[in-house]
Amino acid sequence: MALIVQKYGGTSVGDLSRIRNVARRVARTRQEGNDVVVAVSAMSGETDRLIQLANQAWDTPDLREYDSLISTGEQVSVALLALTLQSMGVPSRSFLGYQVQIITDSAFSHARIRKIEVATLRQALKKGVVPVVAGFQGVDKEGNITTLGRGGSDTTGVALAAALKADVCEIYTDVEGVYTTDPNICPDARKLSHITYDEMMEMASLGAKVLQIRSVELAKKYNVPVHVRSSFSDKPGTFVTKEDKKMEKVLVSGVTYNKNEAKITIVRVPDRPGIASKIFTPISDANVVVDMIIQNNSADGYTDLTFTVSKADLKRALKLVKATADEIKAQEVLADENIAKVSIVGAGMVSHAGVASKMFSALSRENINILMISTSEIKISCVIEAKYGELAARVLHKTFGLEKGEMRKEA
Amino acid sequence: MALIVQKYGGTSVGDLSRIRNVARRVARTRQEGNDVVVAVSAMSGETDRLIQLANQAWDTPDLREYDSLISTGEQVSVALLALTLQSMGVPSRSFLGYQVQIITDSAFSHARIRKIEVATLRQALKKGVVPVVAGFQGVDKEGNITTLGRGGSDTTGVALAAALKADVCEIYTDVEGVYTTDPNICPDARKLSHITYDEMMEMASLGAKVLQIRSVELAKKYNVPVHVRSSFSDKPGTFVTKEDKKMEKVLVSGVTYNKNEAKITIVRVPDRPGIASKIFTPISDANVVVDMIIQNNSADGYTDLTFTVSKADLKRALKLVKATADEIKAQEVLADENIAKVSIVGAGMVSHAGVASKMFSALSRENINILMISTSEIKISCVIEAKYGELAARVLHKTFGLEKGEMRKEA
Repeated sequence: MALIVQKYGGTSVGDLSRIRNVARRVARTRQEGNDVVVAVSAMSGETDRLIQLANQAWDTPDLREYDSLISTGEQVSVALLALTLQSMGVPSRSFLGYQVQIITDSAFSHARIRKIEVATLRQALKKGVVPVVAGFQGVDKEGNITTLGRGGSDTTGVALAAALKADVCEIYTDVEGVYTTDPNICPDARKLSHITYDEMMEMASLGAKVLQIRSVELAKKYNVPVHVRSSFSDKPGTFVTKEDKKMEKVLVSGVTYNKNEAKITIVRVPDRPGIASKIFTPISDANVVVDMIIQNNSADGYTDLTFTVSKADLKRALKLVKATADEIKAQEVLADENIAKVSIVGAGMVSHAGVASKMFSALSRENINILMISTSEIKISCVIEAKYGELAARVLHKTFGLEKGEMRKEA
Repeated sequence: MALIVQKYGGTSVGDLSRIRNVARRVARTRQEGNDVVVAVSAMSGETDRLIQLANQAWDTPDLREYDSLISTGEQVSVALLALTLQSMGVPSRSFLGYQVQIITDSAFSHARIRKIEVATLRQALKKGVVPVVAGFQGVDKEGNITTLGRGGSDTTGVALAAALKADVCEIYTDVEGVYTTDPNICPDARKLSHITYDEMMEMASLGAKVLQIRSVELAKKYNVPVHVRSSFSDKPGTFVTKEDKKMEKVLVSGVTYNKNEAKITIVRVPDRPGIASKIFTPISDANVVVDMIIQNNSADGYTDLTFTVSKADLKRALKLVKATADEIKAQEVLADENIAKVSIVGAGMVSHAGVASKMFSALSRENINILMISTSEIKISCVIEAKYGELAARVLHKTFGLEKGEMRKEA
């Protein structure tokens, strides 16, 4: 008998017939002899409706009130799922963040889980009751409702699995798993049967929307096996696990691309110690996340500095950067929204040479100019002109043989 | 400086422009030098939407889940009002039942308040913060969310006023106060400037929907002055207070009528001790509220027993009554949904003779047949055929001179 945490996303509980579908799956998992703890998102569209209400009340809402407001979406869906399970004869009970005691810090709207009390949940399981836990929400030590940021229900699921020492955390969504690349732009995209935590984190941070990145960090930290799969099918999805030495290493697991970034260049920055900190401190203080940063070699005591931010933050970032540029007497500040970032991710890269050059050659063969490059141990990202984004993803997908299946050793 | 509790109903917070209207009134009351604590219902229509969802999930929903679900309506409206107040520069903070600690019993869906902790609210007031408290909801000692029954936000308002020893509890609604009768059926209906707790309780129990009856009980118990008024106007409404010896007593304060009841008659019930208890125990166990009960004198050892229940409960009640009737070998069970109850209410009745006969004569002059009669110290109710309901209300309103103003002594 296993202990399984099942997390269902918003589309999986989008209406009452889908909630019944979820309840049937929970009931079946239980009949197969497992203990089940369920975590649920808000019905799809509901969180957006609530956010809109908050923004109509005040365009810069106080985040304590905002969190209390938008957490109602999950409060509704857990009650509906518990009721539906009961109607099928499955004893069930809903739990809100404060009822479980999912304790978080007080960083409203992007709170982090500090501790989960498992006593109440274990007691419910012991009585044969299926606990249905509200995703996305927690409570701080003053009793205020907090939320975990977009996609936070994934983190709730994984954190519950970690706290309960569950055998697996199943993440049910509207796609069948993690793909080698976005099937919408590359018909050859293939579902991966396995992916490592590190690869999944890179893929998530590069724009693959299957899992909230913090949930993967947490899964890695507590070694929780995660199974990403569809709530509309019985096919196995993708297992996200630690690297398995016995398995052959995959060179490249996936290709991602992302059109949500913009590039800022500061031209002729005086090349002195402390300049980078002068530029980036105000940006980070404003909670703008900077992704890639490139600084060219200095020639004449001046250098160009280029970095990317999300398009949504561009305006705010530009204002701050222009002020700094004036102050440090840089020549000018340029912005470019017309870019795409295409990346390859693979745990096998770390021990194989030649992957980068193979990527660059493939892009060059298509006359795609590379504007920026950034690498980590297991990923290489290139910023290119936006119009080439999809083409680049398809070319790289083919170049690394991703359509063929994943048991390859060599580049 | 006064401490004022203001309770706003669903229509008063029905959309964001109305919420802004409420926020302006709260801000003004505060500018006038008062401390304000606000209690709020769900936006109009929201609770019904949630109830429908629950009923779609399961037609006899578990009431713990049901309460957790429908309490989200108030969670949304308090956050929106607190945000709106903040946007106007008024420091404000929303509080849910568990955050205040509005402790109730565990009778889900019709919980009773046992205790309200006022420390947190007092602390907020001290800091100049306007607490916006979710109406209708509480928390039991296990941390489960409970609700107080339809109209329960009135009770939240009055209970807060009692616990905080407020100077007045203002109940804002979509009518301008308590009327002598329903203005929709009687154009002469007049707004009362004052009404006693007892009269208001009778009027509420007879179908006047302005206040939840338990809120009036509570106001009476703790002697909380209640001011029922419109959130869409600045006119004073109706004050509900204890009887004032200095005021002349009103003979009849109001006329109510109610078409939501049905009548059940058990024909030829063997007239033995214990029979009534045999009949009514299963009904009360099923939480069906019985209103009027009439038992005729026994002639030949048999009697007819008639009582009324709400139409919504008729089916359930009939099933139970038929089973008992078989068991005790009564002749048959009849049901009649085609009835109306018309009542007159007035604290002055207790010391005046002839009120009942005046009522019966007025009905008789219009050829309205009286099917059942029930009296208390300050009210007389008659069940009549449904089609005469409105006519009877108008006739009684005129008979007791209610259109003329309330300072009369005599019938």
